[in-house]
Amino acid sequence: MKIGIIGAGQLGRMLALAGYPLGLRFVFVDQSAEAPGGQVGTIITGAFDDTAALAALADSVDVVTFDVENVPESAVREIAKRRPFLPPVEALAVAQDRLSEKTIFTSLGIPTPRFAPVSSREELDQAIATIGLPAVLKTRRLGYDGRGQAFLRTSADVAPAWERFGSYPLILEQLIDFDREVSLIGVRRPSGETCCYPLAENVHVDGILSHTRAPLAAPALQDTAERYVMRLMQHLDYAGVLTVEFFAEGDRLLANEMAPRVHNSGHWTIEGTVCSQFENHVRAILDLPLGETRAVGHAGMVNFLGELPALAQVLATPGAHFHSYGKTPRPLRKLGHCTVVRQDPAARDAGLDKLLALAGRTPAA
Amino acid sequence: MKIGIIGAGQLGRMLALAGYPLGLRFVFVDQSAEAPGGQVGTIITGAFDDTAALAALADSVDVVTFDVENVPESAVREIAKRRPFLPPVEALAVAQDRLSEKTIFTSLGIPTPRFAPVSSREELDQAIATIGLPAVLKTRRLGYDGRGQAFLRTSADVAPAWERFGSYPLILEQLIDFDREVSLIGVRRPSGETCCYPLAENVHVDGILSHTRAPLAAPALQDTAERYVMRLMQHLDYAGVLTVEFFAEGDRLLANEMAPRVHNSGHWTIEGTVCSQFENHVRAILDLPLGETRAVGHAGMVNFLGELPALAQVLATPGAHFHSYGKTPRPLRKLGHCTVVRQDPAARDAGLDKLLALAGRTPAA
Repeated sequence: MKIGIIGAGQLGRMLALAGYPLGLRFVFVDQSAEAPGGQVGTIITGAFDDTAALAALADSVDVVTFDVENVPESAVREIAKRRPFLPPVEALAVAQDRLSEKTIFTSLGIPTPRFAPVSSREELDQAIATIGLPAVLKTRRLGYDGRGQAFLRTSADVAPAWERFGSYPLILEQLIDFDREVSLIGVRRPSGETCCYPLAENVHVDGILSHTRAPLAAPALQDTAERYVMRLMQHLDYAGVLTVEFFAEGDRLLANEMAPRVHNSGHWTIEGTVCSQFENHVRAILDLPLGETRAVGHAGMVNFLGELPALAQVLATPGAHFHSYGKTPRPLRKLGHCTVVRQDPAARDAGLDKLLALAGRTPAA
Repeated sequence: MKIGIIGAGQLGRMLALAGYPLGLRFVFVDQSAEAPGGQVGTIITGAFDDTAALAALADSVDVVTFDVENVPESAVREIAKRRPFLPPVEALAVAQDRLSEKTIFTSLGIPTPRFAPVSSREELDQAIATIGLPAVLKTRRLGYDGRGQAFLRTSADVAPAWERFGSYPLILEQLIDFDREVSLIGVRRPSGETCCYPLAENVHVDGILSHTRAPLAAPALQDTAERYVMRLMQHLDYAGVLTVEFFAEGDRLLANEMAPRVHNSGHWTIEGTVCSQFENHVRAILDLPLGETRAVGHAGMVNFLGELPALAQVLATPGAHFHSYGKTPRPLRKLGHCTVVRQDPAARDAGLDKLLALAGRTPAA
C-alpha cells in the first residue's frame, strides 16, 4: 500500500518513518524537493494548489492524507474524487477557519472562549462591547504558531490591530486567563473504533510550543476532554488523528483550536506510549486496528527552534530520544525535538530541564 | 552526516529507520535495486565485491558499515583506506571464518564447543576420534541460518556429509546438548564506552531463528556473557554492535558464534529497551554517546518466514509492533517480525503464542 501525503514537513516525515515498518510506502507533494520528507520518500514538487501535482500524487497512491492545513479545499475536493482522502475534507475545511471551528465547538456543546466574527471596524467595536477586553483579534485563516494575532489589552490596542489585520476576515476572541494549556489527541478509523491519548500539558513561548509534559494526571479533565473529542470525531465522521487544544481553568476546559492531523504536542507519544500518534494516524486512515495509546512512563518533549544543539550533547542526556527533521536552520524554525521518558515525574522534570537548557531556554515553568 | 551500508537487507533498512531521527542520511550498496533498504535510502547497485560500486559508496559518505558478513575482506580493506570502516575489518574477517572465530574465543578464555579444522577425509576421522560423536560438520565460511551444516550423529552420517561438503574448508564441532540458546549484544564506541543489552533466549527451528524472549532473568549468565563480550570487543578494538550466540548448560556458557553487526535476536530491542541495537550501532560507529540498553518490559519477538500474516490480524494483537521488510515472499525468506512488550512474563508469553500462531508455528516451547 502507498500513502500520499500533501506536505513533506517533519510531520509527514515522521508519518513515513512510522509507516515503513508496517510495509507501507510514501509519496509526498511539497513545494520544496529539500523538504524533510524527501529523505525518506519520493517528493512530487508542486505548490499545495498545483492541481497537476496533486493529481499525480493521487494517481500514484492508495490513500491521500496531509501534514499541513493550508491546502485549498477546492484542490483536495478534486483529489477526494479520485482517491480516499482522510481525514475528511469537511474536517480540514472546519479547521482552516477559526470561526467555523468555534461555531462547531459551540454547536456540539463544547465550551470555547466567547467569540464574534469581525469583518468591519464597526463589527470590531461591537464585538469588543460584547466580549470585553482583554481579547485577541485573530485572522480567521492561515494563522499558526502565534502568527496573525493581536492582543487587545486596552482600547489603545484596537486601532493598531485593526490597521494591521483589518483587510482580512477576522474573529475576536475572549482572552482566557488559563491555569494551563492542554491538548488531547484522539484517533478514529472509518469503521468506528476510537481511542484517545493521555492529556498533554503544553507550554508556549511567544505563541510557539516550547515543551510538553505527559501524561497529565487529571482524571476529571481527561474524561471531559475525551467526551469533547469523541463528540467532534463522531460529528465529523472522522478518520485519522485529531488534536484539540484546550485552556484549562480548574476542572473546566475551553476548546481553543483543533488540528485534523498529528500534532507537535503529540511527539512525546513516539517513545512515551505503546503506539505513537504517527503510527495510529496511518493505521486509522487505512482502517486498520488502532494501537494502544497507553503511556509507558512520564514523558517530557522539548522543541528545538532555530538551531539544534550538538548531537553528542543531546545523546549524552540519559533517556533522551532525539529527532532531527533534516532541515536547514532558520530563526525560530522547528528543526527537531527531543523526548525524555522516565519512570517518575521528578526524574522526567529533571530530564526536561536539561533538554530546555540545551535548547537555550530557561528551565521549565 | 551520511552513513554508507554494504547490504540493503532488513538490517540495513532498520539501521536507516533508526538513524533518520538523528539527522543522518543513508546510502547502500546492494546487488538488487529492490532490496528493503532502497525504500528508505539510495542504493548503488553492485555486488559486494564490485570495487567500483564500493568506491562510489565510500566517496559519497562519511563512514561505512555493513549489514551482511559475506563481503570480501580484500574489498573492504580498499574502502577502509578511503573512509572509516566500522566495525573494524579484523572483526569482520574473524567472523567470516568459524575456525578463526573459535580460535579467538579459545585464546581469550571464552569457552566454546570442542572443535578441529578439517581439510581432508583423514583429518575428519582424526577430528571425530578427538571430539567424538555426535558432532556438527560445518563449512568454515558462508554458513548462516543452518546452511552449510551436517549433523554427524553416528558413524553412518560421516560419508554422506563428507560427500556433500568435502570440497570446502571445514570445521568439526562438538554437538552440545544445551538447555537453551542465548545471545548477548554488546556495543562499543571508538573512544571506549561500552554497554551490553540484557540476554535474549532464542528458539531456532531448522536452523533459523523462530522467536526470542528477553530479558532472560539469569544474573549469573548475564555477568558471564558480559565479561566474554567485553573481552572480545576490547581485543578487537571494536566499534559498533557485536552479537555473540551462546549455548547455555546450567550456569555455563559456550560461545557458538559471533556476528559483527546488529542481529535478528536483537530486534526486540526496538520496542523492548530504551535505545535499540540499531540506534546504538549508528551512535557507536559515529563515536557518539551510547543509549541506554535497559529493558522497558518483557519482550517476545517472532520472525515471519516465507509469508506475512494479514496486517489487520497482526495489528489486532494487543501491544504488537509489526515490522515488514518490504520484501517479495519466497519460501523461508525472512519477510518481517513482530515484537510484543508486556509488563510481566506471563502476558508476554501469551502475546508470543498469539504471534507464533499468526506465523503458522505451534506455540512457544
